[in-house]
Amino acid sequence: MKLAFLGLGVMGFPMAGHLAKAGHEVTVYNRTAAKARAWTEQHKGAAKATPAEAAAGAEIVFTCVGNDDDVRQVVLGEQGALSGMDKGALLVDHTTASAELARELDAAAKAKGFGFLDAPVSGGQAGAQNGALTVMVGGDAESFARAEPVMKHYGRAVTHMGAAGNGQLTKMVNQIMIAGLVQALSEGLNFAVRAGLDAQKAAQVIAKGAAQSWQLENRWKTMAEGKFQGFGFAVDWMRKDLNIALAEAKKNGAALPLTAIIEQFYGQLNARGAGRWDNTALIDLLANK
Amino acid sequence: MKLAFLGLGVMGFPMAGHLAKAGHEVTVYNRTAAKARAWTEQHKGAAKATPAEAAAGAEIVFTCVGNDDDVRQVVLGEQGALSGMDKGALLVDHTTASAELARELDAAAKAKGFGFLDAPVSGGQAGAQNGALTVMVGGDAESFARAEPVMKHYGRAVTHMGAAGNGQLTKMVNQIMIAGLVQALSEGLNFAVRAGLDAQKAAQVIAKGAAQSWQLENRWKTMAEGKFQGFGFAVDWMRKDLNIALAEAKKNGAALPLTAIIEQFYGQLNARGAGRWDNTALIDLLANK
Repeated sequence: MKLAFLGLGVMGFPMAGHLAKAGHEVTVYNRTAAKARAWTEQHKGAAKATPAEAAAGAEIVFTCVGNDDDVRQVVLGEQGALSGMDKGALLVDHTTASAELARELDAAAKAKGFGFLDAPVSGGQAGAQNGALTVMVGGDAESFARAEPVMKHYGRAVTHMGAAGNGQLTKMVNQIMIAGLVQALSEGLNFAVRAGLDAQKAAQVIAKGAAQSWQLENRWKTMAEGKFQGFGFAVDWMRKDLNIALAEAKKNGAALPLTAIIEQFYGQLNARGAGRWDNTALIDLLANK
Repeated sequence: MKLAFLGLGVMGFPMAGHLAKAGHEVTVYNRTAAKARAWTEQHKGAAKATPAEAAAGAEIVFTCVGNDDDVRQVVLGEQGALSGMDKGALLVDHTTASAELARELDAAAKAKGFGFLDAPVSGGQAGAQNGALTVMVGGDAESFARAEPVMKHYGRAVTHMGAAGNGQLTKMVNQIMIAGLVQALSEGLNFAVRAGLDAQKAAQVIAKGAAQSWQLENRWKTMAEGKFQGFGFAVDWMRKDLNIALAEAKKNGAALPLTAIIEQFYGQLNARGAGRWDNTALIDLLANK
């Protein structure tokens, strides 16, 4: 299948790679051209100078960029994807962005006869590299059915959550829960260390009961060792995601007291220069530094 | 083996039952005598009128009561266990209490030549009934070795965490983490509902990734249905446990900003008359009531 992939960051680069490896004809675009060149050196496929050129001729155009404004530029801009896409093509946005943007893109795409899906992912860089992402998808059922088999090249779980915007809303729920969970883990681990407990032994015991979590099983050790760099999901990205959720909550009326505080904590980490550290660096704020 | 079990509440009643079913000779005591009678009607074993009488002749004396003061009364009081225990006997306290109390009991027991273990459990009423508790044990290795095979009748995981008090400290870490996790789940689920998502579908997707937790898999559904009664671990008990952790943190210097706020939330639930509801009732505070 002819595909386009716009945005070759830490997530997009390996995701586009999986599509090429699966035998699809992939054309890529990246704002920083050097990354697109690096991609074509490693994979079969062409790089183009604008989103519109990359999108031309593709059955499905994937985007995976930084935030709402980046998506608007790469999709709706003068040289944006919508201006180059073929008749009947489908746009799939993997960026974690607002539900409002998803609905805006859905309307813009449909006005030109294109399909649209908002399809944020979770699983981080490792999930993208291993093709083990969770993909939360909003949009019409027909578009989902078209894109699902393709997204399975990097998505272990690809789920249709309903209308346009619902992919983003589901991702928000995910991030709200991770943030609170990591803060809970941070307070527990910091307490354990100060109480003089064997933190690893405590984790083993606790993981057998009602406090078990993926974060406990996969991040407690690195947190205990004070390792926050070179893996995971960055403080600044989590902060961006929480702010999207907090803005949406102002509209739907959901109270997010814990989430609001943790967004502040991530702001403190950013101010300390730890914005690119893994989001589990929340525990670092509890240390006497 | 001759054993004594003091305290037949929702936890102690089935725990003592497992010991009797395993063929041990169990003598019980309960402050409200009717419960002790109910226990002897269901199990082989005798009930006594005071802790001292129940403890006499037992190789291991188990206690499982409400809080620090209850333990002091049943162990150190005039008719307390220590005044009736046989030479060389071992005292095992399953109450969730302070680490300070554990050290106090350890000293009092040793002064009389008895062994001591603090051994709070997690797993709730269901865990006690199914013999699937997690038991976190503090005390000397010799006492642990003596009691471990007996505790396995109701403990699926029985772990020695170090010196006296370390069982309680480990339980505090567990409760700190559960409280934060449940608040995170509450904010996520409440947001999902207000956002118009299919909450069950969202949980299925999210449980495949980094937000996975025991609480998500076992409590999301009841929370979504607004069911908080007749199961689980009560608001008031969780609040008691968090206050023990907060007091300990004042000594060891651990900051617990999230835990402190959630203790306040549990206080709100208590004021609403929801003190006996399951601790997942935190989500009820986010509803517009």
